Amino acid sequence: MNLGSDNLAGVSPEMIAAISRVNEGTVAAYGADDVTAGLTPLFANFFEHDVAVFPLTTGTAANSLALAALVPPYGSVYCHQVAHIANDECNAPEFYTGGAKLVLMEGANGKLNPDALAAAIDAATPHNEHNAQPAAVCLSQITEVGTTYTPDQVAELAEIAHARGLQVHMDGARIANAVVHLGCSFADISWRAGVDALSFGATKNGALAAEALVFFDPAKGTAMPFLRKRAGHLISKMRFVSAQLEAYFTNDLWQTNALHANSIATKIAAGLGKIENVDVLYPVEGNQIFARLAEGTFDKMAASGHGMGHWDEADRVVRMVAAFNSDVGEIEGFLADMKVASGA
Amino acid sequence: MNLGSDNLAGVSPEMIAAISRVNEGTVAAYGADDVTAGLTPLFANFFEHDVAVFPLTTGTAANSLALAALVPPYGSVYCHQVAHIANDECNAPEFYTGGAKLVLMEGANGKLNPDALAAAIDAATPHNEHNAQPAAVCLSQITEVGTTYTPDQVAELAEIAHARGLQVHMDGARIANAVVHLGCSFADISWRAGVDALSFGATKNGALAAEALVFFDPAKGTAMPFLRKRAGHLISKMRFVSAQLEAYFTNDLWQTNALHANSIATKIAAGLGKIENVDVLYPVEGNQIFARLAEGTFDKMAASGHGMGHWDEADRVVRMVAAFNSDVGEIEGFLADMKVASGA
Amino acid sequence: MNLGSDNLAGVSPEMIAAISRVNEGTVAAYGADDVTAGLTPLFANFFEHDVAVFPLTTGTAANSLALAALVPPYGSVYCHQVAHIANDECNAPEFYTGGAKLVLMEGANGKLNPDALAAAIDAATPHNEHNAQPAAVCLSQITEVGTTYTPDQVAELAEIAHARGLQVHMDGARIANAVVHLGCSFADISWRAGVDALSFGATKNGALAAEALVFFDPAKGTAMPFLRKRAGHLISKMRFVSAQLEAYFTNDLWQTNALHANSIATKIAAGLGKIENVDVLYPVEGNQIFARLAEGTFDKMAASGHGMGHWDEADRVVRMVAAFNSDVGEIEGFLADMKVASGA
Amino acid sequence: MNLGSDNLAGVSPEMIAAISRVNEGTVAAYGADDVTAGLTPLFANFFEHDVAVFPLTTGTAANSLALAALVPPYGSVYCHQVAHIANDECNAPEFYTGGAKLVLMEGANGKLNPDALAAAIDAATPHNEHNAQPAAVCLSQITEVGTTYTPDQVAELAEIAHARGLQVHMDGARIANAVVHLGCSFADISWRAGVDALSFGATKNGALAAEALVFFDPAKGTAMPFLRKRAGHLISKMRFVSAQLEAYFTNDLWQTNALHANSIATKIAAGLGKIENVDVLYPVEGNQIFARLAEGTFDKMAASGHGMGHWDEADRVVRMVAAFNSDVGEIEGFLADMKVASGA
Repeated sequence: MNLGSDNLAGVSPEMIAAISRVNEGTVAAYGADDVTAGLTPLFANFFEHDVAVFPLTTGTAANSLALAALVPPYGSVYCHQVAHIANDECNAPEFYTGGAKLVLMEGANGKLNPDALAAAIDAATPHNEHNAQPAAVCLSQITEVGTTYTPDQVAELAEIAHARGLQVHMDGARIANAVVHLGCSFADISWRAGVDALSFGATKNGALAAEALVFFDPAKGTAMPFLRKRAGHLISKMRFVSAQLEAYFTNDLWQTNALHANSIATKIAAGLGKIENVDVLYPVEGNQIFARLAEGTFDKMAASGHGMGHWDEADRVVRMVAAFNSDVGEIEGFLADMKVASGA
Repeated sequence: MNLGSDNLAGVSPEMIAAISRVNEGTVAAYGADDVTAGLTPLFANFFEHDVAVFPLTTGTAANSLALAALVPPYGSVYCHQVAHIANDECNAPEFYTGGAKLVLMEGANGKLNPDALAAAIDAATPHNEHNAQPAAVCLSQITEVGTTYTPDQVAELAEIAHARGLQVHMDGARIANAVVHLGCSFADISWRAGVDALSFGATKNGALAAEALVFFDPAKGTAMPFLRKRAGHLISKMRFVSAQLEAYFTNDLWQTNALHANSIATKIAAGLGKIENVDVLYPVEGNQIFARLAEGTFDKMAASGHGMGHWDEADRVVRMVAAFNSDVGEIEGFLADMKVASGA
Repeated sequence: MNLGSDNLAGVSPEMIAAISRVNEGTVAAYGADDVTAGLTPLFANFFEHDVAVFPLTTGTAANSLALAALVPPYGSVYCHQVAHIANDECNAPEFYTGGAKLVLMEGANGKLNPDALAAAIDAATPHNEHNAQPAAVCLSQITEVGTTYTPDQVAELAEIAHARGLQVHMDGARIANAVVHLGCSFADISWRAGVDALSFGATKNGALAAEALVFFDPAKGTAMPFLRKRAGHLISKMRFVSAQLEAYFTNDLWQTNALHANSIATKIAAGLGKIENVDVLYPVEGNQIFARLAEGTFDKMAASGHGMGHWDEADRVVRMVAAFNSDVGEIEGFLADMKVASGA
Repeated sequence: MNLGSDNLAGVSPEMIAAISRVNEGTVAAYGADDVTAGLTPLFANFFEHDVAVFPLTTGTAANSLALAALVPPYGSVYCHQVAHIANDECNAPEFYTGGAKLVLMEGANGKLNPDALAAAIDAATPHNEHNAQPAAVCLSQITEVGTTYTPDQVAELAEIAHARGLQVHMDGARIANAVVHLGCSFADISWRAGVDALSFGATKNGALAAEALVFFDPAKGTAMPFLRKRAGHLISKMRFVSAQLEAYFTNDLWQTNALHANSIATKIAAGLGKIENVDVLYPVEGNQIFARLAEGTFDKMAASGHGMGHWDEADRVVRMVAAFNSDVGEIEGFLADMKVASGA
């Protein structure tokens, strides 16, 4: 069973169908087509709020463009020390913001700690213009260790940020997995909790390459058409990206896919919890499981054809990610092999 | 007949088929898959040369990343004043290079003039570090006004560049159209003529979103994995981009598509040449036609359902672009309507 | 006589005196000292307007920081094709703005042409976000070829800019020379004529290293403390820079120095006008003279110990710049040697 | 007694004298003068090594330009979490490098810990181009908490860096204070210990505004003339900066000044050590003292006219910095007042 990443999965058949369906006629390029125009009301309806929506093809682009819109080059962005923007985007946030700084915060279960955040911001500028100016807080939803912020937790952090003049960005690469886990609405977990800009990810949950940068105050997206174009992220045949986002909302595909992935992860986590020598490290609140394995287990599992990702190789911590199309029938075998590989 | 742009066309059915075909199984993400790995020998074979190949989804990304690899932030890039990088990429080259400068050159038929280029470079740095340092020459193939550099013309410009220590980049957004027009090989028009880095475009010629940045000295691409990732241009499910490039070369799809588009343009241009009050402005050496129309013609054509692009609205110059799937059956009607609309 | 540049001169004795005078006691660093605080009322009084003033040590820093404050990275700046920011600052404007583009304009006598400027801005964005967005106009006062914009000329250009939403920056590296030439006030040539931000130069007119970036709407300078610091341009012992600016205004030193330099240039230009084979090229409206010399004249003058700068070596055009301390007694000999060297 | 910072002191009389002395004649601008030319052999002799030397006017510029020369935009720089480049330069390193990332390290006494450094670098790139690439280590000499790296300590860290392909930069804002404390040569503490580039500070030790960026492999400085100019840091009347550096080495002014400042700090620290309720926090190995004071002490000292800097206000930690011209006669009174203010 390959649990290496949800990026390893292919795409939902609905995505291929949507791409095929819009492959007809000559239509305006660069997002001036009807499918793309339809995304604004679609997202507005779905999020129950006015929005400015910008389709993109990678999460790194969405995150970096969001920060470019919200943060001046002399600003700083508070994020968790394991955040994707800090560790997995090769300085893209710094590039796009013109040199803003990420301030890395500790916090249990991959989440920012409200008190620590408030204290850090309050202590950030003892020397005026000598210091980077706090400008934004970035939350990963689902976090990098598979946990999920509740709406209240987001709101508490957002209040701290807003009270100090900072913007709130949410890296929602796996936001659908969070929403189905929480049983709340997209609105609850975003603008209603204080999020100003959202990187709305669909790729990891069944799309081919479709993300959307969403501003809940459309005015904050005013510069985005230019920032996107100068970054080379304005897709010419945009309809094929927008059609994916449309399909994602059609018949609740986002929900079906996320529920499936989460359910697989829950089942696997439950099984792992019963295996000696396997130490599940964080609450499983989405489609990811992190666990510390016994010496040699990873290699034995690989030899049996099971894929996982090294999270902290030296510490024998692995990441397992269920995808929208993971096969429930493979779970039993995976767990059986894990039991053997763990020497349990 | 909609001749607004080759970006308005959809995609070749072969592209949808290729995307569908690779949608199977869990495979490595971020370009570590087999389809992507296959691009290197594929391009090497096709270009008859060692290459480093980087799949991308937009031409602006390909151009800007190429320049980022070749040009220091204190450098300058010589290009034609109508170049896409100068007029249509919203400062992307400046963004990616960290602030390099584009030096705009005049030149007949959208092409750089060798003598003018040599003179400009030679006069560029009278004051040492006070001046931007000439670093690259960028050629559009096909040019922005639809003409095509011959291999000899490229070679002459490249020799001028290389003799002065500059690199040569080719913006090949429509390179297939050039190659079928010239009847030469891709090698002839690229490395054999002195091109160091090539933005190889497939999107305008039938792909969904597939370009490739090609370095003929792979060492020049050493930094590219990092430059691409920090720009947010590393697609996670890369196989779906790479599959398009693979399909593009399969059964000479690139050639079929480009021949079709060029042939349509040739036929239309021939027809336009016979219409009074329509002034075709440049040699038609690909799939684009530029013409000055009589007052009111554009609007009348639009009213008849024909699409064209304003190139210089004040001067009544329009651009007509044939696509890989333009319908030959519509030409006659288009020309008939044009004759009427031109009051000829 | 060395007319190579006004940068070759040393500094006014008053500058050394001012530096010595403030070298007393321990005072706050980084511009929190009293001398620096005094610059705001001093400039406000002198310019008859509210100002935000930022002392700097180079003109390139002043120009680039001004543009960084006024222009977004996807913006463009209209300037004359011989502008210092375009030719002599090694891409500093591009660096500081995060990649904005300079649009180079032709224009007689080194000045922007109002009609051409308006037309260029109006035609700049046919393709929305594909195009760099016009954001500022930059005027050199005195121009790079020694001419001076009148207040009316500045106002006409500023109106064109403002009517189209652009900001107006003045590179006033030699603004004192302009003011004494025009016989107007600093206010007349700056905010009263529509200038939004001014690089106020003192270095070329007798200071050691002292420039000031002046915003006439202080709100436009809000980000400047941070932009300056992140550029490494916040001098720690700022009092020594501020003291130069204070001295510059004391007893009208700026005026004395500029009058002297202009007067020397006027005398030399008058003499050159009478020499056959010397072709003075532009109206001499400050302290600079541009002339085309006969073949070999430059070298003969150099051999006689006279310094001039090559402006266009291939075309035998030289630049002669009088300084605040040029020796009037050397003029006669210079002209006599020029007559001989010119074979006149 | 004002111990707020060594930046609050004025400048050595020798500096004013040097500035006055070179204020003669017309000489080449922008560093083409003889005084500046003389810096290369002067530094080479002083450092016993080939050098490329670039005079600058701020430490932030020196640090940032050094990193711009050594680190790619997708790189990372390892430094102590209290480093000046991390906390006091308002994102200048990020700006100059085009977006490189600072990795903040803990370590006793303000120094990098060799084992932690090696481990951090070794674990930095588990995901290839997704991760910032380790590119440089930056050491502050003297550290931000007043301690000094021994040559052996520098060498150990430099070996770790070099073995992993990283460059070593030293922020030598107070390097003279370190050298006189250590009793070693400048060579011992720089290139001989593995330093590749040095920000050599003179301003804090008596100069007006004079720093030098020194490369021990001159080839590493090849791009510096351009990087400096595009940053607006090429001073036109350079002789006045270079003359300060010349004066700094003349008659061992650097040594006299640093010895004086260090000796003052040593005396004060000794006195503070005897005062109850004053907790000196780090070894005093230069001209800086850090101490935790009792509640209210800072304000009482301020009321008595004594200046100190808040280092961590919430924690009542202050910084005291002796300058090259601090008055030894004021020490006794300072300590007496401190005793009273501390309620000891």
